[in-house]
Amino acid sequence: MDLHQLVATIRSKSSFLCVGLDPDPDRIPEHLGSGPEAVLAFNKAIIGATADLAVAYKPNVAFYEAMGPDGWEVLRQTMDAIPAGCLKIADAKRGDIGNTATRYAQAAFGAWGADAVTVAPYMGRESVEPFLAFEDKWTILLAATSNPGAEDFEFHGMDSGQPLWRRVFEVSRTYKGAERLMYVVGATRPELLAECRAAAPDRFLLVPGVGAQGGSLEAVCAAGWAEELAGGLLVNVGRSLLYASGGPDFAEAARKEAENIREAMAGALAASR
Amino acid sequence: MDLHQLVATIRSKSSFLCVGLDPDPDRIPEHLGSGPEAVLAFNKAIIGATADLAVAYKPNVAFYEAMGPDGWEVLRQTMDAIPAGCLKIADAKRGDIGNTATRYAQAAFGAWGADAVTVAPYMGRESVEPFLAFEDKWTILLAATSNPGAEDFEFHGMDSGQPLWRRVFEVSRTYKGAERLMYVVGATRPELLAECRAAAPDRFLLVPGVGAQGGSLEAVCAAGWAEELAGGLLVNVGRSLLYASGGPDFAEAARKEAENIREAMAGALAASR
Repeated sequence: MDLHQLVATIRSKSSFLCVGLDPDPDRIPEHLGSGPEAVLAFNKAIIGATADLAVAYKPNVAFYEAMGPDGWEVLRQTMDAIPAGCLKIADAKRGDIGNTATRYAQAAFGAWGADAVTVAPYMGRESVEPFLAFEDKWTILLAATSNPGAEDFEFHGMDSGQPLWRRVFEVSRTYKGAERLMYVVGATRPELLAECRAAAPDRFLLVPGVGAQGGSLEAVCAAGWAEELAGGLLVNVGRSLLYASGGPDFAEAARKEAENIREAMAGALAASR
Repeated sequence: MDLHQLVATIRSKSSFLCVGLDPDPDRIPEHLGSGPEAVLAFNKAIIGATADLAVAYKPNVAFYEAMGPDGWEVLRQTMDAIPAGCLKIADAKRGDIGNTATRYAQAAFGAWGADAVTVAPYMGRESVEPFLAFEDKWTILLAATSNPGAEDFEFHGMDSGQPLWRRVFEVSRTYKGAERLMYVVGATRPELLAECRAAAPDRFLLVPGVGAQGGSLEAVCAAGWAEELAGGLLVNVGRSLLYASGGPDFAEAARKEAENIREAMAGALAASR
C-alpha cells in the first residue's frame, strides 16, 4: 500500500484506526478455549468485526513470539486474515545491522507477510536502510514515545536543544529509501506530538497510547494533524477495544468501541476539509 | 550461570570465546543438504566441535526468524544442543516496554531456553527492567557498537561530553536488577572499548567484531580487560569460524579456528595473573 492508497483509504473509510492485536492468552474469552487456536480465533473475530472500520492492524510480535513455535503460525495466519485493503503492521521494534537487519526484514515482509514493520534506531543507518530497501514496504521508526523511561535516552541531549528523538527525525531523513519511513510517536504528550509533526510534516505517524493508556484522540488530532495526508496519523487502539467485553459478545463489543472511535475520526476528517 | 560460575568457567577452560551461531543457508556446506534440518545439523556439528573451547554460544535470532515457523524449532533445538556449562545467549536486540517486554523475555528465557538476551535501550527503563526481573538470567544491553552508523545516535550528545552510549551505562546502573546486566561493545574501536570498560569496571562486556569484521583480539584484551572478572570479556567470533571451510571438513576447520583463538585467550589469561 503506497502513500496515495493509504490516504485514499483513510478518506474513503473516514477512519485512521489501527487495531493493535496484542492477544493476551489470559484475557481471551473463555468460550474460545485456550492455546494458539483460541488466540487465532480471537484475532480473526476481532478482525472480522472491525475490518470496515479500521485502516490498519498491528500485531504485537512479542505476544506471538512468547507462544513458542506455534505463535509464528498464529502470526502468519493473523496477517493472512487481515483484508488486503488494510495496512498490516508487524510491531516488532527490531534493531540490528547489515545482513542481520536484512534477515529481520525478510522475516517481517516475507515470512509474516507484513506491509510495515516497526524498527528501533539505536544502531543507526545500517540498522534501518536494510528495511528501507524493500521498495513496496514501510519502515516505522521509533522516535518519541511517551512512557516515563523515554526520559532516560530519547530525551538525551535536551540541554543542548536537540533531544535524541529529534535527531532521529533529522538523520533518518538522509537514509536511502527515507520516503518509505513513518515514525512511532506516543499519544499521551500532545506537545511532544506537535513537535514531532513539525519535525516530519510529510510523514505518517503511528500513534499508540490512545484508550487504555490514557491518550485522547482529540488531543492527538489537534497536535499531530497533517492536512495533506488526511491527518497523517495511524492511531492505534489495543486493549480497550480487544477486551471491551470478556464474554461471548467480545467481537460485538470491540466493534462498538471501534465505531465510537471511527465516529470521532470521521468528525476530525470532516472538520479538516 | 551466575557471575562466579562464569568467571570460574573462563578460568577452567582458559577461554572467553563466544561462538556466534548466524547460520546463513547459502553458506551451509552442500553435503548437509538444505532447509531447517541442514541448519540444525550445521549448528550441532559446530557446537560439538567447539564445546570444550567456548564458554558461550550466541545464536543470532534474525537468522532463525527469517526461516519462518521452522526456524523457531531450529533455534530451540540449537539452544538445547549447547552444553549446560556454556552460556546460551539469544542475540535478539529486543526493545519494547512493559508487558510487551515481559513477553519478549518469556520468549527468550522460556520458549527458546536462553540464559541471556541482548536488549536495545532506546525506550529506557520500562524496556529493560522486565528482562532484569528474571533473577537467574542475564540481560546484555546494547551500548557502544563499532559500525559507522553508530555515529548517528549512539554518539549523540558527544559535544557536551556525554554521548548516548555513556548515558546508557550511567542510567542502566540505576535499574532494578542492574547486577544482572552485561553490555554489548564493538571490537573495532579499542579506544571506545577502553572507555566502556572504565564506565563499567565490574560488568561483563560482550564484544562482537573480532575475526571477519576486522577486530583484533589482542587490542580487545588490552583495552577491555577487567582482572577481577578473568577479563570480563565474552569475545564473539562468528563467520570466520563457522565458514572456515565450506566443505565436509567444516567442523574440523571451525575447531582449528577456535583452538587458535583459545590459545591466544589462554595467553591473555595467563599473562594477567
